[in-house]
Amino acid sequence: MNLKGKHLIDPNDFTLEELDQIFKVAQDMEKHPKKYSEICKSKILATLFYEPSTRTRLSFESAMLRMGGNILGFADATTSSVSKGESVADTVRVVSGYADIIVMRHPKEGAPLLSSEYSSVPVINGGDGGHQHPTQTLTDLLTIKNLKGKIDDNKVALCGDLKYGRTVHSLIKTLARYKNMSFYLVSPPQLKLPTYIKEFVKNEYNAEIFETSYLEEVINEVDILYMTRIQRERFFNEEDYLKLKNSYILTRDKIKDAKEDMLIMHPLPRVNEIDYSVDDDKRAVYFKQAQYGVYVRMSLMAHLLGVV
Amino acid sequence: MNLKGKHLIDPNDFTLEELDQIFKVAQDMEKHPKKYSEICKSKILATLFYEPSTRTRLSFESAMLRMGGNILGFADATTSSVSKGESVADTVRVVSGYADIIVMRHPKEGAPLLSSEYSSVPVINGGDGGHQHPTQTLTDLLTIKNLKGKIDDNKVALCGDLKYGRTVHSLIKTLARYKNMSFYLVSPPQLKLPTYIKEFVKNEYNAEIFETSYLEEVINEVDILYMTRIQRERFFNEEDYLKLKNSYILTRDKIKDAKEDMLIMHPLPRVNEIDYSVDDDKRAVYFKQAQYGVYVRMSLMAHLLGVV
Amino acid sequence: MNLKGKHLIDPNDFTLEELDQIFKVAQDMEKHPKKYSEICKSKILATLFYEPSTRTRLSFESAMLRMGGNILGFADATTSSVSKGESVADTVRVVSGYADIIVMRHPKEGAPLLSSEYSSVPVINGGDGGHQHPTQTLTDLLTIKNLKGKIDDNKVALCGDLKYGRTVHSLIKTLARYKNMSFYLVSPPQLKLPTYIKEFVKNEYNAEIFETSYLEEVINEVDILYMTRIQRERFFNEEDYLKLKNSYILTRDKIKDAKEDMLIMHPLPRVNEIDYSVDDDKRAVYFKQAQYGVYVRMSLMAHLLGVV
Repeated sequence: MNLKGKHLIDPNDFTLEELDQIFKVAQDMEKHPKKYSEICKSKILATLFYEPSTRTRLSFESAMLRMGGNILGFADATTSSVSKGESVADTVRVVSGYADIIVMRHPKEGAPLLSSEYSSVPVINGGDGGHQHPTQTLTDLLTIKNLKGKIDDNKVALCGDLKYGRTVHSLIKTLARYKNMSFYLVSPPQLKLPTYIKEFVKNEYNAEIFETSYLEEVINEVDILYMTRIQRERFFNEEDYLKLKNSYILTRDKIKDAKEDMLIMHPLPRVNEIDYSVDDDKRAVYFKQAQYGVYVRMSLMAHLLGVV
Repeated sequence: MNLKGKHLIDPNDFTLEELDQIFKVAQDMEKHPKKYSEICKSKILATLFYEPSTRTRLSFESAMLRMGGNILGFADATTSSVSKGESVADTVRVVSGYADIIVMRHPKEGAPLLSSEYSSVPVINGGDGGHQHPTQTLTDLLTIKNLKGKIDDNKVALCGDLKYGRTVHSLIKTLARYKNMSFYLVSPPQLKLPTYIKEFVKNEYNAEIFETSYLEEVINEVDILYMTRIQRERFFNEEDYLKLKNSYILTRDKIKDAKEDMLIMHPLPRVNEIDYSVDDDKRAVYFKQAQYGVYVRMSLMAHLLGVV
Repeated sequence: MNLKGKHLIDPNDFTLEELDQIFKVAQDMEKHPKKYSEICKSKILATLFYEPSTRTRLSFESAMLRMGGNILGFADATTSSVSKGESVADTVRVVSGYADIIVMRHPKEGAPLLSSEYSSVPVINGGDGGHQHPTQTLTDLLTIKNLKGKIDDNKVALCGDLKYGRTVHSLIKTLARYKNMSFYLVSPPQLKLPTYIKEFVKNEYNAEIFETSYLEEVINEVDILYMTRIQRERFFNEEDYLKLKNSYILTRDKIKDAKEDMLIMHPLPRVNEIDYSVDDDKRAVYFKQAQYGVYVRMSLMAHLLGVV
């Protein structure tokens, strides 16, 4: 299995074996950081962020720096040549002469895929519109693997805006590939997971799916509670929003009868969907999750660059 | 005395002995840069600038790079997750997993202090609203120490907007801790140093204070003239501004009878409060001062990281 | 010949021998990148971009990183102290204490020249208003040298907006210094090369000049076709624009009878002035050209820093 020179556009670009290999090296990187602190010496990561994303960008930059590599790029399309009307394909063709690997965040779906066709170096999708966010998915999987021991056999609640949230779409399609998974989809009726994804998950992988509008109905059964943001502007009217929003805010009270080893995850940034009082609960692992994001990105880049 | 793992939020967080230790190493760093050029290898500085400040940010970045370390961060809140409504506490909790030390500039007073409570790595206040700017104060102190030989026993004029200028507030509260200091506060009546700071300096430290609206009255007596900007919009009316502004612009003519070894300092950037013709005078040390800012930040970070 | 400590403001600041030396080392850097991968260790490049330019900035950053050096700076005046009204001279005086070499892009003509007078380290003009863009010119020259074997004896068509394009002005004034050059100036009548440049090129260097509004008239004769953008807003009226714009868009059809070894060059970014179908033609070298820009900037900085 050799990932050198590959792109990562969709989390399902990789086989489960390849994912497992990435996780194994990520775990070793966490344990023995010194061993890897020079493996990307003289390598350059270009961060092409056509829309701002502190967390994803800084996570990638930290990952590259921790392997002894270097970074260049832009954090925002307004400081780039985009303002002069250049196509993404041209930008990538030029930047692939400046750098050894590229991560791109773009508001338009498909921009990273298109870019990968023009790039002479590996391209990683750092999030494209409402479409995919594969390194968030790798982060989520590594978190589950590290804290649950394995990804198979878990009951996972996904809570919040399941209609527009690309994080959730990427995640469920990848989780479904593991054995014996059950999904509890918790969302307001107008923000349900799109049917084509539900069908895909059920038919391709035989995963079990339950849908509900009430978190309380499922919270005590699940092994993993994956929270996401609900944006007020997604609701059809203010009345619906006010009626429903409290159901989707996690409080200490709501988790008091949940499993002792349940993981509470969140891709961050959170706004108010997890109350600050929950942070001290040992089941709240979202800050650990952000930390695992660095290790998984280190491992990913090291594999695509062929240095591990 | 061990500063490893500490934060720097207020310049008075450190004892005079600790400050002295920082200055001593800064002086050695200036003399023997090679000796320190690798001490921060594999270390990462995160620069979280919620409002732009080229000078402070670049000074920190230069300091870290000169010690062989690395940098990541943002220069502007608009390219950060702040736009998604994330709290500073959450951002810092995540970023402290990405970096080994953090410097934060924030428009709100207290944001760096709050951040330090959530961070697992040292946090340095890079300026918070009208409140504190401790590394500017360290820079100013090192400049005086280097060019006067000692900080004690100096007559210091502080000139300009003493009401809103955080630089001046930080500086006077720290200078007052040294022996036998006299302060000459030169400002328009409506921009005087706040009474609570004046009382603090007088009562706690027995420093002498003189107040005046006219620079001419004191300029020939002082050892140090610290100039700051006066913003037009701070004045109650245009008439006052026009009447007073020339008193607060330093010219060659105004310094012709000042002491031969007086230091003319300025935190920079200047707009028009020091005439360009003054730059060639050997007493004008504001560009040297900016240079010392790099050495003092090197020493500060090296201490907080525990590598010296 | 020693370029250490020099500035590069105008491409004609250097003799042809000095340019040749820069090209020779650039060629060696392309062939033996490892040999040069540490020569700028501990050196810092400051990128002061008062207007955004991804390509130029990232090209410089890649160049410095490939020599083992470091970078700091800003990509945009809005995240700099400029917003506080500081003069460029003051900024440069301070930044030359933070870095070992500076590249500046500025919307005002002459800003880099002024800066070089206040800087204690080498300043490179990264483009100033409609004036000069010397490192683009070095890039263009290296491209011709690499792909044609020599710069002398070439017939060069310059096509597009020759009135306002600083790239073209820099280029023609430098190319004219080589032996036996002919220039074919192809532009709409209202966007012709300024007379003072034409006179300079003719009188100083005896270069031959032909002017036309029709690319078709000259395309089959030339060795090099240098395309540039025409901005719609440069035309006096919409009618002229619509009538002329197609003449200045390069298509496969237009090059079918051009020389087999003609080079099609472009400073990039392109908008629509070269049709995408031309990209696959082996004569289209604009992406290679962008790549050579990294090597020539490496060599330039290494010379100014005195490390080669």
